[in-house]
Amino acid sequence: MKLFTYWRSQAAFRVRIALRVKGIAMEKVSLDLLKGDQFAASYQALNPEGVVPTLVDGEGPPLTQSLAILEYLDEKYPDPPLLPAELRARAHARALAQMVAMDAHPFIVPRVRKYLEDELHVDDAARAKWVRHWLDAGSHAIEAVLARDPRTGKFCVGDQVTVADICLAAHLTSAKLFGGRDPANYPAAGRIYANCMAIDAFAAEHPLRQPDAPKS
Amino acid sequence: MKLFTYWRSQAAFRVRIALRVKGIAMEKVSLDLLKGDQFAASYQALNPEGVVPTLVDGEGPPLTQSLAILEYLDEKYPDPPLLPAELRARAHARALAQMVAMDAHPFIVPRVRKYLEDELHVDDAARAKWVRHWLDAGSHAIEAVLARDPRTGKFCVGDQVTVADICLAAHLTSAKLFGGRDPANYPAAGRIYANCMAIDAFAAEHPLRQPDAPKS
Repeated sequence: MKLFTYWRSQAAFRVRIALRVKGIAMEKVSLDLLKGDQFAASYQALNPEGVVPTLVDGEGPPLTQSLAILEYLDEKYPDPPLLPAELRARAHARALAQMVAMDAHPFIVPRVRKYLEDELHVDDAARAKWVRHWLDAGSHAIEAVLARDPRTGKFCVGDQVTVADICLAAHLTSAKLFGGRDPANYPAAGRIYANCMAIDAFAAEHPLRQPDAPKS
Repeated sequence: MKLFTYWRSQAAFRVRIALRVKGIAMEKVSLDLLKGDQFAASYQALNPEGVVPTLVDGEGPPLTQSLAILEYLDEKYPDPPLLPAELRARAHARALAQMVAMDAHPFIVPRVRKYLEDELHVDDAARAKWVRHWLDAGSHAIEAVLARDPRTGKFCVGDQVTVADICLAAHLTSAKLFGGRDPANYPAAGRIYANCMAIDAFAAEHPLRQPDAPKS
């Protein structure tokens, strides 16, 4: 499969992990969102919204939106599963994933930082504080749930990797890289993060190990 | 089922529609997010993140995050389905839903408007412009996809209501109520919006028809 990706993108990281967990080979095409590669006509033809990731699987229309792609991969390649079998546990895994993917991640992407700078004249320090604020809010929220939920195990929901772990690991990686936050500050989430990053599918797709990442 | 809701909330509107489409009776408990009801200990016990909606279905743990709740309802009560049967069409419906739910809606909720006001000292006019900007960006993005995708039908994906229609209808309702935008400005999305709002499950749960909505 061909994956349009960007080393900094949390959403692209999620899909890279899922492809690796499923054992699916990927051909990566890197876009530089800070340089505006996402606005090229050739990319807009695949993804009119101009965001990453986009996954091209064979001849069908391109697939967009990372969480929709995770569900697609899980339905098409069910082994190993990325969701528990029981209905309420599935809802719990999806809700944990969305707590960070919908309530934290949207605020830190380039188009939002650009609006803050260009339209609201928010300076560098206040933009950095904004990024940390939403990253921290997401970390606190998911920690509060993981710390008290009896379903929390080696991973977010029991002892199998689910979409929740993929989103949590990507979130805490961003919080470390772009907010300077140590995952270990969050006892439950940090423990699960360490368990995730001990898995090659997670570690090998870390942003700093991407071909388009800065060399130093 | 007991639904914790708020008349202005786009996320709660999505779940109200889905419950109606599925023919599931709901007991509504209204929270006023502007007054801070979401921070009460009794609500935090159900939803530590302090957001709406929360769905309580029987004795199990409460369900949170609107898109996770939609998937749960669709898995537990499969008729009528809220997703197409074919895998790539399912991914398309989920991606359209997420284009507005993840890339537009997060920016207009109370906690974000509060941060803009309290921390960044953004005035009323600039906050209103911010809200319209992200609502418009979501509308333009989904319109661009719907207008050209051959799978677009009476609804977002063919002629059956899916999670995409629920999210689109909730999004364009917010854009109208809180951004003054006419859905008819978007030919494909506006047509689908009208088809949705002609269905009682959508119309009956409109924000202005909620018990906690302002009377005038």
